[in-house]
Amino acid sequence: MNSAELHQNSIVIDGLIIAKWSRELFEDMRKGGLTAANCTVSVWEGFQSTVDNIVEMNQLIEANGDLVTKVHAAADIRRAKEAGKTGIMMGFQNAHAFEDQIGYVQVFKDLGVGVVQMCYNTQNLVGTGCYERDGGLSDFGREIVAEMNRVGIMCDLSHVGSKTSEEVILESKKPVCYSHCLPSGLKQHPRNKSDEELRFIAEHGGFVGVTMFTPFLKKGPDSTIDDYVEAIGYIMNIVGEDQIGIGTDFTQGQDKAFFDYLTHDKGYARELTQFGKIVNPEGIRTVGEFPNLTDALLRNGFSETVVQKIMGQNWVRVLGEVWGE
Amino acid sequence: MNSAELHQNSIVIDGLIIAKWSRELFEDMRKGGLTAANCTVSVWEGFQSTVDNIVEMNQLIEANGDLVTKVHAAADIRRAKEAGKTGIMMGFQNAHAFEDQIGYVQVFKDLGVGVVQMCYNTQNLVGTGCYERDGGLSDFGREIVAEMNRVGIMCDLSHVGSKTSEEVILESKKPVCYSHCLPSGLKQHPRNKSDEELRFIAEHGGFVGVTMFTPFLKKGPDSTIDDYVEAIGYIMNIVGEDQIGIGTDFTQGQDKAFFDYLTHDKGYARELTQFGKIVNPEGIRTVGEFPNLTDALLRNGFSETVVQKIMGQNWVRVLGEVWGE
Repeated sequence: MNSAELHQNSIVIDGLIIAKWSRELFEDMRKGGLTAANCTVSVWEGFQSTVDNIVEMNQLIEANGDLVTKVHAAADIRRAKEAGKTGIMMGFQNAHAFEDQIGYVQVFKDLGVGVVQMCYNTQNLVGTGCYERDGGLSDFGREIVAEMNRVGIMCDLSHVGSKTSEEVILESKKPVCYSHCLPSGLKQHPRNKSDEELRFIAEHGGFVGVTMFTPFLKKGPDSTIDDYVEAIGYIMNIVGEDQIGIGTDFTQGQDKAFFDYLTHDKGYARELTQFGKIVNPEGIRTVGEFPNLTDALLRNGFSETVVQKIMGQNWVRVLGEVWGE
Repeated sequence: MNSAELHQNSIVIDGLIIAKWSRELFEDMRKGGLTAANCTVSVWEGFQSTVDNIVEMNQLIEANGDLVTKVHAAADIRRAKEAGKTGIMMGFQNAHAFEDQIGYVQVFKDLGVGVVQMCYNTQNLVGTGCYERDGGLSDFGREIVAEMNRVGIMCDLSHVGSKTSEEVILESKKPVCYSHCLPSGLKQHPRNKSDEELRFIAEHGGFVGVTMFTPFLKKGPDSTIDDYVEAIGYIMNIVGEDQIGIGTDFTQGQDKAFFDYLTHDKGYARELTQFGKIVNPEGIRTVGEFPNLTDALLRNGFSETVVQKIMGQNWVRVLGEVWGE
């Protein structure tokens, strides 16, 4: 099988996209052969603004039903594959939208949210993000983890601090993930995960999606798809071939104002970081180039079986475990 | 001068009351000769619910203008004394009402809020309370402290964790307070402050209001006003006679549902503590008995000068320093 055929036959999951949602993007998802993607609908927003974002996404999915379909369960991902559409999984990058209401966890599950990152960069009611000193998982956070376990929302730890992450991994009764991260073994960065952290999540049944965000790759904006594959290989050496997947962090179509929003606490307060030039690795600059990743993995010696696991098979399995089916 | 005359001639400030607001209570404040009180209008409430509480308090003050008057500045306290009314200072026991908006600090100052406790018992966006592990002041919390300094709202640390308290004391450019606390030197309790903590706040220009909440006094519900005076003397030995005042924590008129609200995280989640029987010390069971405190202090050998400092003169001075006048 050539790489194009393999890609075509694979379930392809992107564990994290935070693009500008539009028909053009959905068309590019189809071009890229994406079976499903975890699409961010909340970062700094509170409850009601997040509901508004979900309403907007619902309307966009409805208006583009020829290209995309909403995902509530792992079976929906398989159905999307059969129908030749891309499944839209809704996700948060911050538990802030739960505000102080444990009951909102169920509400958002009912609205179709499947993955929620516990903290985004800084402290919230649940724990602390990776851009400040981290005091660990709060007692309220433990209640939120239990409720996410109960209703079936996956805990994501990508932007979460090291101590809070460790404690969520220990607290959760279902697999948790770093949906989109890179190894600090290749480049030191507050957002990257150490070998110990990667080993710890894997040993506790967790999952690692590998991102390609070039500010966190060692060659920065000069990175190519092969540097991305190197990082995937690095992480697979630690976590094994069954607990790894893709989480690109595509920001396609977003403008400077959006990056300013992301890089300031609460979306407007102090600046937390500066990314410099943001350009995806050569070879996978756009969602539509997703088939190049299957090709690059094969070219770098990954077997067809492992490529299919990495490209999405593992994600579907672990999401099914968390969502309960 | 006898104790009744001294009380009558003193500025009497209660640094913390969380009673059921009503005309009856305002009448009892007058009976007790209270010049002003820091009245809690927010505990677990978010922004809008807190504004609603303030509206309710505004209407109650308006309807009872013969008894009470709203305090925006230290001069208003002196004017209340001259007019024979009780000044109502509005305060929060939780920075939660600021939500994630630094701009709300100015909004609440404009609405008349003069004292805000940084955390109530548990973790919020600013830091952590005294009923769970405390990771310290968050970076967002540092921005909130700076804004409270700028607009002139006093930082209160009574229910705040030890580490967050220490860091707020170091961060603030204006005096901060424990508005209502007791010494753990007399009874060990998560809410009580150690000699080191009392010394630390005093050495950094801060202020200590002494509470009489019997679950935190060594004799519990059997405490009398003399046990309260003992605690005042204990704290004065550490912080000196100029940085100490009263902060009763009167809960007059509140029912079981209200205490359930206080003792559960966010007002409804897990239970944080059980107080057992709640009864104020014999001799000062009600706000109207406030003159007995002046009497008990004199009876226990405090000089008239020191009694007047403790009863309110110190509070007026430090509030003026923070509010900027």
